[in-house]
Amino acid sequence: MKLIDGGVCAPSGFKASGIHCGVRPNKDKNDLALIVSEYPCVSSAMFTSNVVKAAPVKLDIITAKKGKARAIVANSGIANACCPDEEMTASSMQKCAADVLGIDPDEVFVCSTGVIGQRLNIEAIRNGLPLCAEQLECSAGASDNAARAIMTTDTRKKEFAVEFELSDGTVSRLGGISKGSGMIHPNMGTMLCFITGDANISRELSDRALRKVCAGSFNRISVDGDTSTNDTLLLLTNGACGNKLIDSDDADYKAFVDALEFLCVSLAKAMAADGEGAKHLITCSVRNAVDERNAEMMARSVISSSLTKCAVFGCDANWGRILCAMGYSGADFDPDKTDIYFESLAGRIKVCENGRGLDFDEELALKILQCPEVIIDADLSQGDGFAVCWGCDMTYDYVRINGDYRT
Amino acid sequence: MKLIDGGVCAPSGFKASGIHCGVRPNKDKNDLALIVSEYPCVSSAMFTSNVVKAAPVKLDIITAKKGKARAIVANSGIANACCPDEEMTASSMQKCAADVLGIDPDEVFVCSTGVIGQRLNIEAIRNGLPLCAEQLECSAGASDNAARAIMTTDTRKKEFAVEFELSDGTVSRLGGISKGSGMIHPNMGTMLCFITGDANISRELSDRALRKVCAGSFNRISVDGDTSTNDTLLLLTNGACGNKLIDSDDADYKAFVDALEFLCVSLAKAMAADGEGAKHLITCSVRNAVDERNAEMMARSVISSSLTKCAVFGCDANWGRILCAMGYSGADFDPDKTDIYFESLAGRIKVCENGRGLDFDEELALKILQCPEVIIDADLSQGDGFAVCWGCDMTYDYVRINGDYRT
Repeated sequence: MKLIDGGVCAPSGFKASGIHCGVRPNKDKNDLALIVSEYPCVSSAMFTSNVVKAAPVKLDIITAKKGKARAIVANSGIANACCPDEEMTASSMQKCAADVLGIDPDEVFVCSTGVIGQRLNIEAIRNGLPLCAEQLECSAGASDNAARAIMTTDTRKKEFAVEFELSDGTVSRLGGISKGSGMIHPNMGTMLCFITGDANISRELSDRALRKVCAGSFNRISVDGDTSTNDTLLLLTNGACGNKLIDSDDADYKAFVDALEFLCVSLAKAMAADGEGAKHLITCSVRNAVDERNAEMMARSVISSSLTKCAVFGCDANWGRILCAMGYSGADFDPDKTDIYFESLAGRIKVCENGRGLDFDEELALKILQCPEVIIDADLSQGDGFAVCWGCDMTYDYVRINGDYRT
Repeated sequence: MKLIDGGVCAPSGFKASGIHCGVRPNKDKNDLALIVSEYPCVSSAMFTSNVVKAAPVKLDIITAKKGKARAIVANSGIANACCPDEEMTASSMQKCAADVLGIDPDEVFVCSTGVIGQRLNIEAIRNGLPLCAEQLECSAGASDNAARAIMTTDTRKKEFAVEFELSDGTVSRLGGISKGSGMIHPNMGTMLCFITGDANISRELSDRALRKVCAGSFNRISVDGDTSTNDTLLLLTNGACGNKLIDSDDADYKAFVDALEFLCVSLAKAMAADGEGAKHLITCSVRNAVDERNAEMMARSVISSSLTKCAVFGCDANWGRILCAMGYSGADFDPDKTDIYFESLAGRIKVCENGRGLDFDEELALKILQCPEVIIDADLSQGDGFAVCWGCDMTYDYVRINGDYRT
């Protein structure tokens, strides 16, 4: 498996585009994206667990069940959630996209991200779609345009692609773009993630692969614990690489899952690192817990703790808050057997042994915490459960961005 | 029932004191408190649900079971948690306090609050206790000294007392001091709350009253979702007001519970309003939910949402985040029947009706949100469940305080 360029256009048979259509006032900012497969696709999808679901999510749930989707239309700026006529607007967006692409509305997923409660300017989208379709291209630049069109408060685009070999010698590709900061704990502006692939895989195994990989990637990041109304994760595979159909849990399925996991973890980490206002990517690994579930509960609790997030922002090796967050996570563990380390490119330091603080080198700890990627490593000596979660620090900028987002 | 002065010294037979003994470097800051009843007490206690429990909490759990406690010794500055010899230090603090008070160690609750993982200077406490005991007094000033001695990042002391009448004409009093910001979601520095009372009440009913009242007061506030290792809520009643023993669920028990609830809600609101860096007290009331449990889940989710907290800080009427937080709370409700209002001394405004945004007066909304106490009122039109939770906004100062607490 190797990283390649091209984003969602890396797999064969996919085109993308992104333009400014006028949903956003700023003309320099793309706000409308299209991704289309030349061939029919197998599609798998996952959506927000929030009871309050935006209209495009409700529509996509129906589209996903029909299983025919081969295109995605997405806008940023307005979430099309909790506003008048939201269902009609989402349907209209789906129909317009289908019309300009010359395909059936059932073949189009619709996604929106941005402010909740305000009406989406569907006229702007309707008027913009012909140009957006005209600009569809199979190129790295086209994927870049689409990736930028779905960004909201993101400061960097999130785009990766990988190439992997199947047992019959076929080379297959997966590409993805995403925005926002999480599936379970996403940022205000929603997580959207669109993945394309040219493998030939059955619907059942595509669904299974997406669920499995999502649990270990997007569901393990958090920026602020708020789960949005619009979160959507889509996987379209069109079989264009010509491999033998993956329809059982064999070596090819494993290769597909590994590649998908690598792609999704890369996108998830990029989202956590670009959490609103973030200065640090925080990786928390919990080792030797009773089991994976308990390890995940603790790792998630640590990266979600506001106090830990503030401490990392301040480069303060305040490990007591880490142990404390593990303690209220609901997980089963013995604090008196717990060791805690901080690690980064600057080094590794043990700060807590058997649940008690050590007299550690504060200067080294400071250097470690000043790196942009910090690892918090907890060793529980109680079993072989392991899990990693990713988050970011809490900064003045987080408060600034979210104290004044709507206005 | 009426509010009175005197804090923990308001009920008959209680003395208090607070001094600087040297746990903290700043000589102007009290760091050691004593509260003592002249008479034997009935005591009830509740502690943190965190798996990582500080040594004083572990010791108090044993002391509470013995049921003889009539005194409290507490320090601020260091939490005596996750540090070497913490159990020995807590026991030593209990024994020293018992010695200077001439009572049994089993009669003394021990509490600590402050930094986790650092060793508590027990010598300073041992040397300070004789002076602290000497200064014990039954006066408003003495309760004030004790209230100040348990403060950490609190900017205001929390102290209330109430007077209420029982059926035999006896006038009984309850007084309380507290610090920190919550029982379930306390601030880094722990919630400590000490309540004194002169009612004559059985152990069973005292326990029952404290559990009931805690659920509707301290367990309904949140500052940042972090549950500390040291949270402790203590109630000591000495019977000195001379009433007929409260030993059944009668009118007198109800009067006691009402007074205790008023006291605890007042202390809880004061803690939420003084959350680290807070500029606003946020009250979220959820009305007409399916039941109280679901109402509480939604109200708690709203006041815990970082995005909502930032929006209130920015005086931004971003009700979409409120509906979104209700949506991921896990509660059962129909967003399409939900109305949302903002309210404060400046007025009341409906911003969302049946789950859809209204074109509301932004200027009035801004004025409402600029008041220091903001009410978020959600009406679900689905039943008669009602709950209120209290929290505070998230500010630059929260990040500043917690990015640089330990150093």
